[in-house]
Amino acid sequence: MALEFTIQNTNGKGRRGRIVTPHAAIETPVFMPVGTVASVKGVPQEIVEELGAEIILGNTYHLYLRPGIETVRKMGGLHGFMSWRRAILTDSGGFQVFSLSELRKLTEEGVTFRSHLDGSSHFFSPESAMEAQIGLGADIIMAFDECTEYPADQARMRDSMELTARWAARSKKYFEEHKHEVPWACVGADAFVRPAERSSAFHRSWEPASSELPPAVEDSGLRPSGRTKASVPTHSEQTQSLFGIVQGGMDRALRKESAERTIAIGFPGYAIGGLSVGEPRELTREIVESTLEHLPKDKPRYLMGVGTPQEIVEYANLGVDLMDCVLPTRAARHGLLFTSEGKVSIKQARYAQDPGPPDPNCACRVCQRYSRAYLRHLYASNEVLAQVLNTIHNLSFYLDTMRRVRHSISLGEEYRFLSGVWSRPAP
Amino acid sequence: MALEFTIQNTNGKGRRGRIVTPHAAIETPVFMPVGTVASVKGVPQEIVEELGAEIILGNTYHLYLRPGIETVRKMGGLHGFMSWRRAILTDSGGFQVFSLSELRKLTEEGVTFRSHLDGSSHFFSPESAMEAQIGLGADIIMAFDECTEYPADQARMRDSMELTARWAARSKKYFEEHKHEVPWACVGADAFVRPAERSSAFHRSWEPASSELPPAVEDSGLRPSGRTKASVPTHSEQTQSLFGIVQGGMDRALRKESAERTIAIGFPGYAIGGLSVGEPRELTREIVESTLEHLPKDKPRYLMGVGTPQEIVEYANLGVDLMDCVLPTRAARHGLLFTSEGKVSIKQARYAQDPGPPDPNCACRVCQRYSRAYLRHLYASNEVLAQVLNTIHNLSFYLDTMRRVRHSISLGEEYRFLSGVWSRPAP
Repeated sequence: MALEFTIQNTNGKGRRGRIVTPHAAIETPVFMPVGTVASVKGVPQEIVEELGAEIILGNTYHLYLRPGIETVRKMGGLHGFMSWRRAILTDSGGFQVFSLSELRKLTEEGVTFRSHLDGSSHFFSPESAMEAQIGLGADIIMAFDECTEYPADQARMRDSMELTARWAARSKKYFEEHKHEVPWACVGADAFVRPAERSSAFHRSWEPASSELPPAVEDSGLRPSGRTKASVPTHSEQTQSLFGIVQGGMDRALRKESAERTIAIGFPGYAIGGLSVGEPRELTREIVESTLEHLPKDKPRYLMGVGTPQEIVEYANLGVDLMDCVLPTRAARHGLLFTSEGKVSIKQARYAQDPGPPDPNCACRVCQRYSRAYLRHLYASNEVLAQVLNTIHNLSFYLDTMRRVRHSISLGEEYRFLSGVWSRPAP
Repeated sequence: MALEFTIQNTNGKGRRGRIVTPHAAIETPVFMPVGTVASVKGVPQEIVEELGAEIILGNTYHLYLRPGIETVRKMGGLHGFMSWRRAILTDSGGFQVFSLSELRKLTEEGVTFRSHLDGSSHFFSPESAMEAQIGLGADIIMAFDECTEYPADQARMRDSMELTARWAARSKKYFEEHKHEVPWACVGADAFVRPAERSSAFHRSWEPASSELPPAVEDSGLRPSGRTKASVPTHSEQTQSLFGIVQGGMDRALRKESAERTIAIGFPGYAIGGLSVGEPRELTREIVESTLEHLPKDKPRYLMGVGTPQEIVEYANLGVDLMDCVLPTRAARHGLLFTSEGKVSIKQARYAQDPGPPDPNCACRVCQRYSRAYLRHLYASNEVLAQVLNTIHNLSFYLDTMRRVRHSISLGEEYRFLSGVWSRPAP
């Protein structure tokens, strides 16, 4: 068993569900904080947990280059390497290969590229991207796709979509043949002992998992409802889940065809890729809405790389189940805070003596303790703590927003937050 | 009442004591983490508290330049501004004026200098340094001194020592006349409400403190032993404590004379300044040991800017009560970890696949959760989390080392840690 998806409530197109993965249950719709190189930039894992993140995202391209797949695999996969006990999703590396690396050479077989770090030459194919993601051991991994650039003409969009479809089939084939090579397939919960106990446990951990292993899902903080301890599967019975990616550029017919071809291959979840690549926001929404119509209702739907607080609410109400975006973490590094009263650019002099919290309606540890004046001072002084605290607050705001959306769907009400408080100008 | 100092045990020259300040009781000997610009670099205040720090240090020179004394004063002093509820010590600004600023011009009156940030011109005198430190509102503040450079000839050392003595008298005179202007003299515990409640409380806080204010010492987490609630003074009855600084370069006779002249002025505590300025370590120890003989036994003794883990243990056993140093925080930023097994340069490739904790004998949140391999990866990837986690561990190691020293003095045993485990080569 790899992944269970159940829908508890719907409201309009929005769905309130739960995805059970080998390491954690995820309440959906969910926002996934981005931990590019096995770190949500500036925030210790225990604080990311405290914020309520049930799943985070890692970038295969970055981790492949540094520290390298083999190092992560030897540490029990990303979970063991970064000591993250809940769920993880890795992307396929495709997006970064096309956006970050230099001197790309694309063939039917795959893509040759140069590292943005040191210029060294590398090759990614559907097979090698699967091999890398199996080594990283995330709960959910992604098929290797070509992210079509914007703008692109009709022929280019079709060629690119068809290549992605062929690569999806190769991704699935390799994954099915190798999925039992995931690091925790034979490690079990031992990979998650604290480092102080690891020197001995770690060496044991490569032996086959025994039936005495504690239930993995309980370890990850999930409170199983109505499931007996004996019925909870251990890691050793579980594998990763591979999601397919729908491409097709900004053409609705190509998106429909891509969805149909990807569904025909068959995946336990489907992503919408190739958006937020420079197109107008209205076009993004149009493509998302039309593509969602062609995705199966009983499988998780993941919209990649989106978006602002308004957008994640909007797309959740359209029936998207998973989203990720660097916006809350990246904006934090530039002094931009998302609050219930609108965006706050904390670097502004107007906050220099403001004793109020960043967001008066936020319960996060930053808003409970620190003033705008203090955050403004930290930012103006280039203190690292500015990034740490700003990131904690922004993630709290995103995760809290999604909690409210889930609650609203459960109640059968559309979340009205954005049209009310959110749209007010910043104070 | 400003400060109470009691000695509970002695062992040889070492003393196990307690300093009660307006915001917290401090168990001595104590190491004070440095929070230069109102931040222990990279670490949120709640984690510094969790590590057990009872007092931290702020730098007057840096805070005077940014965000400025008036901003901090308006926020209720450093305690309110940075939301730190325990004790704070500020230095006089003298050391940074002499080490960081440019184009200094020294007269009997004071020193004119240019900011290292923007080249703007400023003037510090004993009076303005006191005014600044009263505005910052630390529990313990320092007389304005001239930090004699090393090496210096006999005439220069004498002139400098005598100037420091005259400035000490002027510092005390200004402080005695203005000490009731400290921000929390009329703020009381209200300054420490959480920001979410502050918008209204803050405006109230400038009214005279009422007798209903809760006892400040209880607020700061101190468990008063055998003191009734009614007997604990509120902030409004309390003031800061001004410590004198002994100078005299590397000359034992001048140090003795400086100690005698500073004691003649009369302070509730005495610091040894002008060390760790480039002299050999043996000379530092010789000057510290000889100077301590001339300081009153019943007053706290503060050795400024020292030192390595070995040194803080050594000086505590010689009878020093307070120490501060940027070493644990600065070394952390350069990937150097202090551990019970010796120094660990976490950037080294040998740790790339090391699953063990940074220090197998450390109970800090970093050692309980993260591996050397992960910390090495964070450092190699220039991730901000490297600084955060390395700093948390190093501070934990320093504070834990001092806890062991205090325990050893209580037991009448000299702390043998360093001559045993510490001196072993790094693994």
